[in-house]
Amino acid sequence: MKRLLSLLFISSMFLTANSQEASSKEDSLQLRKIYDYALLEGKSYDWLDHLSNNIGGRLSGSLNAQKAVDYTKAELEKLGLDKVWLQPVMVPKWTRGGREYSYLETAPGETRNLNITALGGSVSTPEGGTKAQVIEVQGLEELAELGREKIAGKIVFYNRPMRPELIHTFEAYGGCVDQRYSGAEEAAKYGAVGVIVRSLSLKQDDYPHTGSMSYGDTPVSKRIPAAAISTNDADYVSGMLKISPDLKLYFKLNSEQHEDVLSYNVIGEITGSEYPDEIMVVGGHLDSWDLGDGSHDDGAGVVQSMEVLRLFKEMGYQPKRTIRVVLFMNEENGLRGGNEYAKVAHEKGENHIFALESDSGGFTPRGFSFDADEAQFAQIRSWQSLFKPYLIHYFELGGSGADIGPLKEGDMVLAGLRPDSQRYFDHHHAATDTFEHVNKRELELGAATMTSLIYLVDKYGIKQINTQSQQKF
Amino acid sequence: MKRLLSLLFISSMFLTANSQEASSKEDSLQLRKIYDYALLEGKSYDWLDHLSNNIGGRLSGSLNAQKAVDYTKAELEKLGLDKVWLQPVMVPKWTRGGREYSYLETAPGETRNLNITALGGSVSTPEGGTKAQVIEVQGLEELAELGREKIAGKIVFYNRPMRPELIHTFEAYGGCVDQRYSGAEEAAKYGAVGVIVRSLSLKQDDYPHTGSMSYGDTPVSKRIPAAAISTNDADYVSGMLKISPDLKLYFKLNSEQHEDVLSYNVIGEITGSEYPDEIMVVGGHLDSWDLGDGSHDDGAGVVQSMEVLRLFKEMGYQPKRTIRVVLFMNEENGLRGGNEYAKVAHEKGENHIFALESDSGGFTPRGFSFDADEAQFAQIRSWQSLFKPYLIHYFELGGSGADIGPLKEGDMVLAGLRPDSQRYFDHHHAATDTFEHVNKRELELGAATMTSLIYLVDKYGIKQINTQSQQKF
Repeated sequence: MKRLLSLLFISSMFLTANSQEASSKEDSLQLRKIYDYALLEGKSYDWLDHLSNNIGGRLSGSLNAQKAVDYTKAELEKLGLDKVWLQPVMVPKWTRGGREYSYLETAPGETRNLNITALGGSVSTPEGGTKAQVIEVQGLEELAELGREKIAGKIVFYNRPMRPELIHTFEAYGGCVDQRYSGAEEAAKYGAVGVIVRSLSLKQDDYPHTGSMSYGDTPVSKRIPAAAISTNDADYVSGMLKISPDLKLYFKLNSEQHEDVLSYNVIGEITGSEYPDEIMVVGGHLDSWDLGDGSHDDGAGVVQSMEVLRLFKEMGYQPKRTIRVVLFMNEENGLRGGNEYAKVAHEKGENHIFALESDSGGFTPRGFSFDADEAQFAQIRSWQSLFKPYLIHYFELGGSGADIGPLKEGDMVLAGLRPDSQRYFDHHHAATDTFEHVNKRELELGAATMTSLIYLVDKYGIKQINTQSQQKF
Repeated sequence: MKRLLSLLFISSMFLTANSQEASSKEDSLQLRKIYDYALLEGKSYDWLDHLSNNIGGRLSGSLNAQKAVDYTKAELEKLGLDKVWLQPVMVPKWTRGGREYSYLETAPGETRNLNITALGGSVSTPEGGTKAQVIEVQGLEELAELGREKIAGKIVFYNRPMRPELIHTFEAYGGCVDQRYSGAEEAAKYGAVGVIVRSLSLKQDDYPHTGSMSYGDTPVSKRIPAAAISTNDADYVSGMLKISPDLKLYFKLNSEQHEDVLSYNVIGEITGSEYPDEIMVVGGHLDSWDLGDGSHDDGAGVVQSMEVLRLFKEMGYQPKRTIRVVLFMNEENGLRGGNEYAKVAHEKGENHIFALESDSGGFTPRGFSFDADEAQFAQIRSWQSLFKPYLIHYFELGGSGADIGPLKEGDMVLAGLRPDSQRYFDHHHAATDTFEHVNKRELELGAATMTSLIYLVDKYGIKQINTQSQQKF
């Protein structure tokens, strides 16, 4: 009897091994098929061409943002999905207004122009512009140390650069973005009249980079204008201030905050054949800043997410679980789309098991970072070897994406596509975030990599191990 | 006694483990230091700026090639190396001549211009150009099948495209390059009057890509002119031929093959403190094609190789073994520099243990491929985890570099830097291989990655296991 049991045990091991092997082989073939379709019959690049070149920058509440909603909805409707719909969401509407202008007064009557851009959300300067002495600081801490006496009446110039030695450029960005986001709120507390920030870029060039900022609870009457200057100009101003600390800087912004307006998340779905209630989201954000055409941030993520569903349809692959593409509105200056999607999902009691965002540029994909439980991460890592032929090697715990963050609940796993990040901040939020800086193959490889991960999640599901913690929510 | 031996054995294991751990920690710190220096104090980008923008394309035997020899020698002399010298080598001199020109005659008296470039080494067309019917083939095999009857008197149009679904673009290149290299030699056998090749690029655009070709042993009088047209034009010609198979194509080339001229490999060396006779080479090739400025191919490899030695000097690191930078002349159309370096090294009985070439573009480094024995490769792979913080993940057996190939002997290990290859063939041998397409950080990361590998080879040496096979050479 014991012997028989042993035999049974051994043969069941063989069966398991064989079926695992077969399954792994099937998965290998399926991934190869996905990459083939993406590289040979991909549509993401054409979609991006339209979004970038026929529409352009898509700031929340703008006509272009609405055009992008209409276009992507129409394109999703062509794919033969089970459902396509718009999810209404009120978004902030901030406009840049006419051309911004800045100079450093290098001597009485002598000026040198600076490349400047208002930060998103900044108030306008007074009609005649703002002109004042400049005080350079390396961050919020130094600002506080200097205090009101040194700051009042001046323009604060935040000049702490991104650290080039960090391999992950997002880490370098994270180490500086407080200057842009909170710089004006903090400087106003000490009586500053304006804020200039060194552009968050690792490249020395003449392009200023915009981005979101907040006044916190600063009353409207106390808000001061805030803008970014190019890295070259930041070095120039810093150098001039070392020679002549009393130089004055002038800048003129024409921005305006309007009433919120109605906009939409664009959503499409292939309903799962076996577990329709288990929802996997794949998405990017449809809005962008206005200086470039938003090709990397986040046109790439939008078209790659659409491509995931298109590839499944093209390949004739029917998912067991529901795959939903969500093109979020207003990631850049409000996150209203991400919050609304999560709110509605929770209200409806929808069971989201997984969400993947692509919002780090359309560069060669290197892998994913996961917001997951250790056991879930172990499950996901067991798939990593399948990606090796595609040079996908980065599977790490970490952040996912801003838009999908609010969705996180209980056992759900979030993931972010991690493309090569070395060039990303050269273009991020600047006039150079344009179509010609996206490479077709790199974009397509990203879409294939995302599709492959969704395929595996669809096939194997996500470990539900965390129900205790789910109850805490 | 037995117990004592066991204890000794165990404690020696501990010692080994501890010293391995200490060694690994020291190596980690050393690599971090190398990357810091490369990213914070790098010089490769400035060198490339000069090579690309102040000198430009550096075809063998040209004035620019000589300028590049002079410039890099002078720069190496500034680094305080132990030796810098020029190694004379006779190189072929081929010139493009005046502007090339081509059109498809779409109707009597109606033409459409094609973007064309002579292949390197091609003979000129006759004074009045070559005009003939075109026959499209997908490769040398189809050419042979069609035979003299279909080919004689015509221009053969090789139009097999690179396969987009291959992840390693060099593999896609390898699958097509026979058309460019041997197309004219083979077509001439069947009486063709000229050859047009689809540019070896994965991008659809208007830039033709040149590259080397050979007439084999075809007598001079039987040689036919050969050129590449852009991928867009290849599709255009192919489409038109489907409608009107009798259309004629005209092209005019003005190239000329001259007598060989004297040129140089540029060599610099830090002599090893403990094993000066064990030589490690790091190199790229100084010559380039003439259409662009050769920034990726192979200005990047040249400046990265120089940077390896500069970083060691800057860091005050004295290698135990000899590190030699070799800037090879004439990789593109002759490999004379690589052959000469190997010949001299063998004549002198020099002991080269390792050679690393960077000749795959200045893009984000992904790793290396190695031409090594299994045991040597196991040794090298044991270092791989040190590279993980720098997202270097690709350690595979495979090719190395054309210039260092002739050096291979016995126990020697060859290696090639493997950068991200997705964009490489967009620029390769075309007018778009220019400085603005090289990213400073990506270039610097490549230099740091190379330096790290050389550091490890210097510290641990290369396993000498293959002395039997050495005797075979």
